[in-house]
Amino acid sequence: MRKFKIALLQMKVVETKASNLSRAVEMIAKAARAGADLIVLPEMFNCPYQTAKFPQYAEQEGGYTWQELSRAASDYQVLLIGGSVPEEDRSGRVYNTSYIFNQQGEQIGKHRKMHLFDINIRGGQVFKESATLTAGDRITVMMTPYGKMGVMICYDLRFPELARLMVQAGAEFIVVPGAFNMTTGPVHWELLFRARAVDNQVYMIGVAPARQEHSSYVSYGHSLIVDPWGRVVSQLGAAAGSLITEVDLTLLDQIKQELPLLKHRRKDIYALRELR
Amino acid sequence: MRKFKIALLQMKVVETKASNLSRAVEMIAKAARAGADLIVLPEMFNCPYQTAKFPQYAEQEGGYTWQELSRAASDYQVLLIGGSVPEEDRSGRVYNTSYIFNQQGEQIGKHRKMHLFDINIRGGQVFKESATLTAGDRITVMMTPYGKMGVMICYDLRFPELARLMVQAGAEFIVVPGAFNMTTGPVHWELLFRARAVDNQVYMIGVAPARQEHSSYVSYGHSLIVDPWGRVVSQLGAAAGSLITEVDLTLLDQIKQELPLLKHRRKDIYALRELR
Repeated sequence: MRKFKIALLQMKVVETKASNLSRAVEMIAKAARAGADLIVLPEMFNCPYQTAKFPQYAEQEGGYTWQELSRAASDYQVLLIGGSVPEEDRSGRVYNTSYIFNQQGEQIGKHRKMHLFDINIRGGQVFKESATLTAGDRITVMMTPYGKMGVMICYDLRFPELARLMVQAGAEFIVVPGAFNMTTGPVHWELLFRARAVDNQVYMIGVAPARQEHSSYVSYGHSLIVDPWGRVVSQLGAAAGSLITEVDLTLLDQIKQELPLLKHRRKDIYALRELR
Repeated sequence: MRKFKIALLQMKVVETKASNLSRAVEMIAKAARAGADLIVLPEMFNCPYQTAKFPQYAEQEGGYTWQELSRAASDYQVLLIGGSVPEEDRSGRVYNTSYIFNQQGEQIGKHRKMHLFDINIRGGQVFKESATLTAGDRITVMMTPYGKMGVMICYDLRFPELARLMVQAGAEFIVVPGAFNMTTGPVHWELLFRARAVDNQVYMIGVAPARQEHSSYVSYGHSLIVDPWGRVVSQLGAAAGSLITEVDLTLLDQIKQELPLLKHRRKDIYALRELR
């Protein structure tokens, strides 16, 4: 299927994990009833975005949050990109992880954020994910009923190597649960989605938590879909809400024919490779 | 010197090569008198941007155009990035080439466009550089009195690998003589300069010919300087004109400290390398 409907759930994240889960499931149900085939939650949707909270909220794969997501995917028969949540592995390391479920509620993929967000802007945003999180080490691309999909998380977007490697692995659209902030969001959020889309001739989809001015980390919001020509197809503002948009992958075929960027790479002069 | 003044000469290109050269030299003289340290001409500034004209206008390195540029650089004691011109090698191949001269008029570098512009947009721009041009095969980064500089030409900008490789080689600012058109210019010109600047934490400088509505290829114009935070420092419109702006490379140091993107690359997972 080259055309499908994708829902971006820009939800408000609160302190109580169970409230976040029930809100997520409600929004999934509503989006599914509105015809969404593929549904995306935001980064850290079950946990406030604070380094100290990540270990407290962390669960192992297969835990409560995982089960709620799996059940929602199968109940509503949607492909579900479960934003991200803190995941604890058996040795106690904590990751920023996105679980992906098919319409039967089976996990078809999982991405652990590969680039940890450590930033210290004078008079602006300060944050240090590496204080409590461990970085993942896998590039996440998987086949879905709607085409080949890449999943990365927030700061991963800043590294052009990653989107390029996903496209070299066949990705046709890239989903990015993310939460830029009020320092970087206004200047870089839309820019980076548009640039990755144009350079790589893919759809780029970003889903952020709603803005809450009194949080310790204020999300920029602005969940969006960008087409492979770099056009913002649709975009939310700062407030909680959802957006359902049709994605048409036949546009990739047209653009790749008109401007064959990927063919024009100088493979005789440079190479970008995964080291495995 | 970490601060310097750069002049962008968005000149009008006409049929007669000698008129283009005399106009370029006039504009160089004027910019130098206004305090410019480094001066940039646009892509194909001595020749109309038409594939059939490239071989007709081509000269060997050291020819008339080269000599005029060399003399202008030494007469006005500026670092001169000579836009680009058609260059013919000894075996008759033609390249889209940028010559770079120091304040003594000596050639300190030369870039041959590495990615040839072949595009065929339905209802939009059609062009096929590869009909008459040969692609270069060298990445061009050189030391200057003002820091390490990369030079690429127009369509080269579309390939994120190239700017990244330049930065991996130490580039602090990248100069791009270019001529986007009325199909790609409005949607992609500023976007790509901003994205390369943000991803690579360098200044990006683009210099285009002035727009002429009745040319067979209509240049978008909009010569610009973007700082490493992705801000457009200054930009021209469509008309002929020049722009002198101060570049402050100390901003790179600050931004690299606040948001150490290049350090955060996952060198254990991926590698971008030049194959030589």
